[in-house]
Amino acid sequence: MAGPFDWIEEQARLRHRAGLVRTLRPRPADSPLLDLAGNDYLGLARHPEVTGAAAEAARHWGAGATGSRLVTGSTALHARLEAELAAFCGFEAALVLSSGYAANLAALTTLAPHGSLIVSDAANHASLIDGCRLARGTTQVIPHGDLDALRKNLDGHPGPALAVSDSVFSVDGDAAPLTALAGACREFGAALLVDDAHGLGVLGPGGRGAPAAAGLAGAGDVVATVTLSKSLGSQGGAVLGPARVIDHLVNTARTFIFDTGLAPAAVGAALGALRLVEREPGRPEAVRTVARDLHARLTGAGLEAVRPDAAVVSVRAPSPGEALQWAADCREKGVSVGCFRPPSVPDGISRLRLTARADLTPAQITEAVRVIVATAPR
Amino acid sequence: MAGPFDWIEEQARLRHRAGLVRTLRPRPADSPLLDLAGNDYLGLARHPEVTGAAAEAARHWGAGATGSRLVTGSTALHARLEAELAAFCGFEAALVLSSGYAANLAALTTLAPHGSLIVSDAANHASLIDGCRLARGTTQVIPHGDLDALRKNLDGHPGPALAVSDSVFSVDGDAAPLTALAGACREFGAALLVDDAHGLGVLGPGGRGAPAAAGLAGAGDVVATVTLSKSLGSQGGAVLGPARVIDHLVNTARTFIFDTGLAPAAVGAALGALRLVEREPGRPEAVRTVARDLHARLTGAGLEAVRPDAAVVSVRAPSPGEALQWAADCREKGVSVGCFRPPSVPDGISRLRLTARADLTPAQITEAVRVIVATAPR
Repeated sequence: MAGPFDWIEEQARLRHRAGLVRTLRPRPADSPLLDLAGNDYLGLARHPEVTGAAAEAARHWGAGATGSRLVTGSTALHARLEAELAAFCGFEAALVLSSGYAANLAALTTLAPHGSLIVSDAANHASLIDGCRLARGTTQVIPHGDLDALRKNLDGHPGPALAVSDSVFSVDGDAAPLTALAGACREFGAALLVDDAHGLGVLGPGGRGAPAAAGLAGAGDVVATVTLSKSLGSQGGAVLGPARVIDHLVNTARTFIFDTGLAPAAVGAALGALRLVEREPGRPEAVRTVARDLHARLTGAGLEAVRPDAAVVSVRAPSPGEALQWAADCREKGVSVGCFRPPSVPDGISRLRLTARADLTPAQITEAVRVIVATAPR
Repeated sequence: MAGPFDWIEEQARLRHRAGLVRTLRPRPADSPLLDLAGNDYLGLARHPEVTGAAAEAARHWGAGATGSRLVTGSTALHARLEAELAAFCGFEAALVLSSGYAANLAALTTLAPHGSLIVSDAANHASLIDGCRLARGTTQVIPHGDLDALRKNLDGHPGPALAVSDSVFSVDGDAAPLTALAGACREFGAALLVDDAHGLGVLGPGGRGAPAAAGLAGAGDVVATVTLSKSLGSQGGAVLGPARVIDHLVNTARTFIFDTGLAPAAVGAALGALRLVEREPGRPEAVRTVARDLHARLTGAGLEAVRPDAAVVSVRAPSPGEALQWAADCREKGVSVGCFRPPSVPDGISRLRLTARADLTPAQITEAVRVIVATAPR
């Protein structure tokens, strides 16, 4: 019998034919695989201090926040995390949301009103792109890292303007030229929104993030978003910026107002992780060293890889099929790596995506490089 | 000095002048207030079995999922919750996302492709509205509950069509006529998407939700979304539907693919709560009884309230200012109630929003009614 979802089958067939079917592969708690695929950059998701803080928060504050942050969903624990996160990153105020995705939607939909202009880097994360699509302003996408195109678009725009960029791009791990971006914005009176999902805990003094590294933290014309689910090993996202901007979000951001507050366990874990990073400032440096080491050894063995600006090391694969086979062969030999291929990569280039972790041992790095090189397509 | 966010100040001034400023009020872990504002309908957010499951999951699986569900973020615990949630609600398959908001964006953006038609109830939740805006299909908004308008819009549409509705509307607590909605959809070969955020755990046999109550669970042309953050006392959302629809989401839903998986503590808490509801099927009935009791006593005392179809009891207030004062007076006298007013309510009607809880005692109900009636604007 024909049904209203029959059109889905045709898409499934096309995916299958193109070798692009994605399937979920649930993992056990103690995987035997060496993990170079996750975003737990500082190795904190399993740290007993962080999991202990999550457990304690669930027991003390409850398993859920019970409502919108504006109704019953704001606990004193949320307020403490927001204060300490803002202080750590050097911003005036912070607002925690249930994901980094929600944080980016919140920032873009509230900071780009009707009549405004958003200038967005072509390599920006999906959540920034969706934020641009939901915002009432007009979006202009510019080529990746193209400062001239940014200036050209900002020049002469009569209303509010906002440039938006990842600080570290997720796929290739390259960093945006934040200082130059901010300079261009200031020439034309535009604001700058930086998604520091891959920078927090990795870049800047003691892991304070890319805006801090570029001297932009706390500036009146800069807003940053971060995630609590990568270097802080938890879940959730946050917007950081001037207090008036955060107040504006509290009053107008739909993904904040109409969503349940972040669960206390995730708030507690992020707070525990943040305090640990402050106490152990060597971790951010360690992850950067591991990333550079991975890159040096892989390129030394003849592979093509992008020089990492943070924790992500992107290695080129000749084709989607070969990338998939390469990742499967790595897994077969005990190493878990990410595999990015179309349609997740707009440039059509397939790659292995490796993530460095601060707690990888020299022996683990050696083993990972050995397996990746041995399984490389020839 | 002029800055790029100066335009925000004008909006803040307007809000202030209209008495519409929202501020966060962080609560302590053990609030002395009687809570009729949260969405913890079954009283499970603080249940030791649920908080214990959250704590155990954080310790065993880690504080965060460490990556996208398609990379490292799917644990066996996620798979277990998805299987048990689908079985409980009577659907073939389920997919867990980091929030109900994300689940609604995922369903709408993947099930309404280019050339399709979405017919959306005017009273739908913000996340459904944003989903419609992000979807590639065309959206037609129809008056609240207007089946004729639904039929008129579906009639003659050549491509895929999808009707979307809350099962229980958040603001007034009234239920959608799901059986009639599904009937109208079937007349025209359209699919039905039901947001059961306020129905799961409250409506249907043993709390199996509004689709189960309407005999629609598991149908090939029906997809439901739920939240784990209301009756299940945790955080997160899920999409329930035919296996081929869930596969389609795994492959194409941006808020699934490009988001970190739900934190294990939230997964564990939701699973613990779900098992508890299955074991204690009296809870859903209890919350409905409390809601009807609240409504009967408030209207008996002369207040105007909407007859509740689930757990939400909406009480009319004469104006935004009086609603705000009423809620403040209730809080002053120890009762926390929700206060909905423009711009969160598109119809411009201000109201107190009370939520029933399965674990409210008769004495607490009596006290809540006493305070709400005593503080009512005259």
